[in-house]
This record gives sequence, C-alpha cells and structure tokens, in this order.
Amino acid sequence: MTTPSSNLEKRIQLLEDRAKITQLRAYYCHVLDDRNWEELASLFTEDGEFQGLAHAVGRAEIFRFFSETVANMAEGFWHFCTNSTMHIEGDQATGRISMQYLSLKDGKSYVSAGHYDDTFQRVDGEWKFKKRKITFYYYSTLDKGFVGQPTYINVDGTPISESVE
Amino acid sequence: MTTPSSNLEKRIQLLEDRAKITQLRAYYCHVLDDRNWEELASLFTEDGEFQGLAHAVGRAEIFRFFSETVANMAEGFWHFCTNSTMHIEGDQATGRISMQYLSLKDGKSYVSAGHYDDTFQRVDGEWKFKKRKITFYYYSTLDKGFVGQPTYINVDGTPISESVE
Amino acid sequence: MTTPSSNLEKRIQLLEDRAKITQLRAYYCHVLDDRNWEELASLFTEDGEFQGLAHAVGRAEIFRFFSETVANMAEGFWHFCTNSTMHIEGDQATGRISMQYLSLKDGKSYVSAGHYDDTFQRVDGEWKFKKRKITFYYYSTLDKGFVGQPTYINVDGTPISESVE
Repeated sequence: MTTPSSNLEKRIQLLEDRAKITQLRAYYCHVLDDRNWEELASLFTEDGEFQGLAHAVGRAEIFRFFSETVANMAEGFWHFCTNSTMHIEGDQATGRISMQYLSLKDGKSYVSAGHYDDTFQRVDGEWKFKKRKITFYYYSTLDKGFVGQPTYINVDGTPISESVE
Repeated sequence: MTTPSSNLEKRIQLLEDRAKITQLRAYYCHVLDDRNWEELASLFTEDGEFQGLAHAVGRAEIFRFFSETVANMAEGFWHFCTNSTMHIEGDQATGRISMQYLSLKDGKSYVSAGHYDDTFQRVDGEWKFKKRKITFYYYSTLDKGFVGQPTYINVDGTPISESVE
Repeated sequence: MTTPSSNLEKRIQLLEDRAKITQLRAYYCHVLDDRNWEELASLFTEDGEFQGLAHAVGRAEIFRFFSETVANMAEGFWHFCTNSTMHIEGDQATGRISMQYLSLKDGKSYVSAGHYDDTFQRVDGEWKFKKRKITFYYYSTLDKGFVGQPTYINVDGTPISESVE
C-alpha cells in the first residue's frame, strides 16, 4: 500500500541518490588528481569499466592502468568536471558530465576537454561507477590550443596498433 | 490546512525544482556543444529570450539564430558552467551561473568567459528558460589571453551598426 | 520519540543544508569576482579564516585583506569552482572544492588552479565559512602554462619574509 509518507520517502531517497552520485563524481576528480589509486579503483564496481585513453575492464585492471600507466604519464594533471546530468532508475543510473583536463608532462602544458558518459550501479547501498566512457573534444599542448586528439593506448601504456585484424 | 506531511511535501518539491533547474542548465551545455538546435530551442519558453552575442526573442528566433548563425561561427565550441545559484518562487526562478566558453574558429583557438543571468518559468510541469542573458568577462584568441570583448551581432550574423538613433 | 515524519524531516533538512552550502560556495565566487568585499566578508563567521595568498583571521581582517590588497592585485580575476564534496554533521560541515582561477594583471594573463578545503558553521540558521584554505596546483602567466606557485603575502600585501625564527 502506498501511504503519503512512503511516497515522500521515495522522493527523498531519489534526491539523496542524486546528491550521492554528484559527490561520487566530484570525489573521483579529487582522488585521481591526488593519485590515490586504491581509492580511485574502489569507486568502480568489481566488474566496472574505464574507457578513456585506454579501455580497462574490471577493478583490478583499472587499478593497474592508473597506478602503473597513468601515474607515469605526466608530472601533474587536474580534472575540472561540470555540467552534470543524471537519470536514476532504482539501483541504476546514467548521465553525462563535461570535463576540462589540464596537465603537465616533461615541463610542457597540455589542454584537453571532453565528457564522461557514465553508468552507475548501487552496490550494498553505495553508488559506484559501472562504466565511465570519455569522449575527447581536443587534446594538445597549450600553445597549439583546442585541437587534436589523444593517442589511445593499451592498459600497459603501449600505443594501440594501427592494424586491426 | 497545513498538515506536517503537506509541509514536508512542499520542501521536497523545492529540492526537486532545484535539481531540475540544475540539470536544465547542464543539459543546455550538452545540446549546445552537440549542435542539437531543435532540442536547444525547446529548452526555452515559447516567448523565451536569449541575449548573448545576439538578442533573439521567441523560440523560433532562438532556433534560427543558433541553427543558422551560431552553427557557422566556429568549427567547435565548448561550454563549461559552474557556480550555480538560484532563487525559486513558485513557478518562477532566477539565478546566475558562471561559464567558460572555449572555441575553435578557422583553426584559431579562442578563450572567453562570463556569466548567465537566468530567468526560469515552469510550463506544464517542466522548467524552461524564460531568459538567458550573458555578461562577457573577456573574449579573445588564446594567445592574447583574458582580454577583449566579443563583437555583438544581429540574429542573422551581421554586425550591429555602430550608429544608434 | 522518532516518528516516521520527524525522521523524514531530518533527511529533508540535510538535503536543504547541502543545497545551501552548494549555493554559498557559488555565491562566494560571484561576489569575489564582482569585488563586493562587504558581502564577501559577510559569508565568513565572525571568527572566520581565509588562508590563500595571505592568511586573514577574523571577518574584519578578511574584509581588509580583500578590499585593500586583493582589490589592487589585478584588473580582473575570475573563479570557476567545480567538484564539490561536503560532509555535514549537525551545524558543522567540511568539504573540498576545486577551483580554476584566471586573472589579468597589468595586461598580462595568468592561469592558476587549486582547491579549497572548507569548514562551515551554521550561525543563526545560516551557513557561513568558518575557514577556507587554498592549496594551489600552479600559478603562472598564461604563456608559461601550468607551472609555478604564487608568492605568499601578508594581509597588507607585503611579501612574507623568507627568514622564519
């Protein structure tokens, strides 16, 4: 039976879910820029996927990609995420968020931006990333400006072979 | 009569309105940068106004300005909106949000920023923009930096005549 | 006694607190960039602290630092804050938020970014900053890119002496 108060409770729950997912996305940037790889990996589901410069599948591979490859890719990087949308359905959610991604590699400054298309899953009462897929708008040195695309790599950092068979 | 639960319901409603307006502003950036002009125009009220580089009045003129003029203004543009405030009163709301606006025109990179002063209206249960008015802080090529102002134009893209009588 | 509706009320209150703190952080950027120093100082508690380029303690000193020193530091500055997290406990809260800080000084463009570690306090029903502490990631002219650190100063604008005894 739906009582007035059980109906209100559902609406509050949805607002709380929204707040938690908002905070998950923000916290992700903080731990990523802080190079806290264990914490970063823990924000994904056990079978979670990250598809950005590389495509890592599963929490263990995500941890490996970030702690071994991303860690050595640049002296510094900073993620600024804005324009957050989300659509929540029970224990699942999807949404897009824009990103500015600035970095410093071998003393050279890089500008990049794009967006994450996210899928979320509630696991044991906690929202996690089921998948983050980045679409890059541009990726270049600061002096070249808002042009170019990143070089896509394997999880171990080697460039993806051009020939696909 | 105000019952405890009808009072709670009003507070929940206000939080939901806040979430919807937040998402409207974010979604606006996604469809604008994706050049989805029909969807963009649909985010305004029938009599809505956009006052940025040009001043377009009414949904039809907003559609015309974006699909015919903005579409040809640059190969790429990206809006990053932050610092969102809003004040909701029933079916109306106002608020400010900051914007970074990066673009690429004829291979040249441009930096710009400013803020939107927004008025919102709830129409048939959905929040729409009644008016978006941009104040630009700067607008210049990337190499010149955070200086200058944009050239204001008519809806058809022609420069606004200097002489006003 | 906890009734179902008093429990819901607490959850709504927490969501409202979250919305108010989010808006406080956004509004801070608007009044700072607008150089509305009185309003800016009023966002801190009477004993509030600002620790950025200088360390100002108390609302009066914060007002003095911003209105006398920051006001003359640059012709223009713009703050874009994203990635907001917060943890609320009754009348206190803590959290981090990222910042891009762009400015123009003597015609030269500067890029900077960092994050605020915030402490909030509810005073007479209104959320205020108890402390904002900035960690800078970089601070440099635009042409040099995402490198360097700012020069830390005293509240009156004089550089902090190197020798500490």
